[in-house]
Amino acid sequence: MVKVPKQVDHAARRGEIAEALTRLTATRGLEGVSLRHVAAEAGMSMGLVQHYFKTKDEMLLFAVQRRSEVYEARIKAQVEAGELPSTPKAILRAIMIEILPIDERSRGNWLMGVAFFIRAVSDPSFAAVYAEGVPELFELFAMLIRQGQEAGDVDKSADPMHESAMLWALADSQGTNVVLKHRTPDEVVSTVDYYLDRLFGSAPAG
Amino acid sequence: MVKVPKQVDHAARRGEIAEALTRLTATRGLEGVSLRHVAAEAGMSMGLVQHYFKTKDEMLLFAVQRRSEVYEARIKAQVEAGELPSTPKAILRAIMIEILPIDERSRGNWLMGVAFFIRAVSDPSFAAVYAEGVPELFELFAMLIRQGQEAGDVDKSADPMHESAMLWALADSQGTNVVLKHRTPDEVVSTVDYYLDRLFGSAPAG
Repeated sequence: MVKVPKQVDHAARRGEIAEALTRLTATRGLEGVSLRHVAAEAGMSMGLVQHYFKTKDEMLLFAVQRRSEVYEARIKAQVEAGELPSTPKAILRAIMIEILPIDERSRGNWLMGVAFFIRAVSDPSFAAVYAEGVPELFELFAMLIRQGQEAGDVDKSADPMHESAMLWALADSQGTNVVLKHRTPDEVVSTVDYYLDRLFGSAPAG
Repeated sequence: MVKVPKQVDHAARRGEIAEALTRLTATRGLEGVSLRHVAAEAGMSMGLVQHYFKTKDEMLLFAVQRRSEVYEARIKAQVEAGELPSTPKAILRAIMIEILPIDERSRGNWLMGVAFFIRAVSDPSFAAVYAEGVPELFELFAMLIRQGQEAGDVDKSADPMHESAMLWALADSQGTNVVLKHRTPDEVVSTVDYYLDRLFGSAPAG
């Protein structure tokens, strides 16, 4: 056989760097993380990290964009493994659980999201990613709620747009309470369940 | 009459500095504001500002603590002037409107809140103020919801603790959407009204 040169999986390396950034952000907050820390955490040289990302902001931009793909892949895997029923309510709950900072990984993701938001207030390239991602999530939530209405689980009087805003608000802002330890992960998940039960419980189960 | 020395109203001066900080934060974000900017905006010397606050962080701590007193005073004034009915629903709505960044003043307050949160993640003195303020707001919300239940306006099956978390989430996180212009002030207020109507509309009006 002809010897082929070793293939470098650039996507995987970028992913490893993003995961290293996420783990470090979980423990020290993004502002406390340097390129040097990321290289050490990812087990790469500074030069290799900089081959992929010139600055920490580029890395953050990539990591936050990649995040929703990771959420999606994890939820799909749970459905395919039969661990998660593919009902609108179960999918909505799984998305909320992914977003909420209830373990180290999601805490890192959540703190990156806050840092990202701060940059988006003043930097158009960050604002553009935000401007695309948030309406997509709203639309996904609204679609799942409409599916619940079609199945007869969600009351027809519920407004999918407002309910989506509520769900997004819950996912986004309960994180603050968890990160600052005012509420436990169990408490915020119980509020998510309370809300979903009220939303999906107002009509007979389909 | 005996001539009395001119009384300096220190509380008023601190308040003026806090208002100057809020206005500047609304237009340039807290990170872009220096003590020098604040002095110019407040029409005071740098030395006078520093007499009251040694650092921007001290100023931020004061401004955020003062904020809820200002909210309270504004709502009380509206009730006393007969502009606002003193029903639990109307008071809840007024608090939500105060918190949401739907004009320049509330935008400044809201961005200060984000900056405050970022510091609270790593600084115990900021975290302590947060740890006190958030449960107080939750408790106020829960009290108003219980009053609504006693008046027969809110369904007895509603859980005041979870509903408070929902309201707090709405107020806290819809701000993100407004600041980044994904939703208009009218849209976020309409979601607040949608939610309050569902909460207070499930039983006949008292």
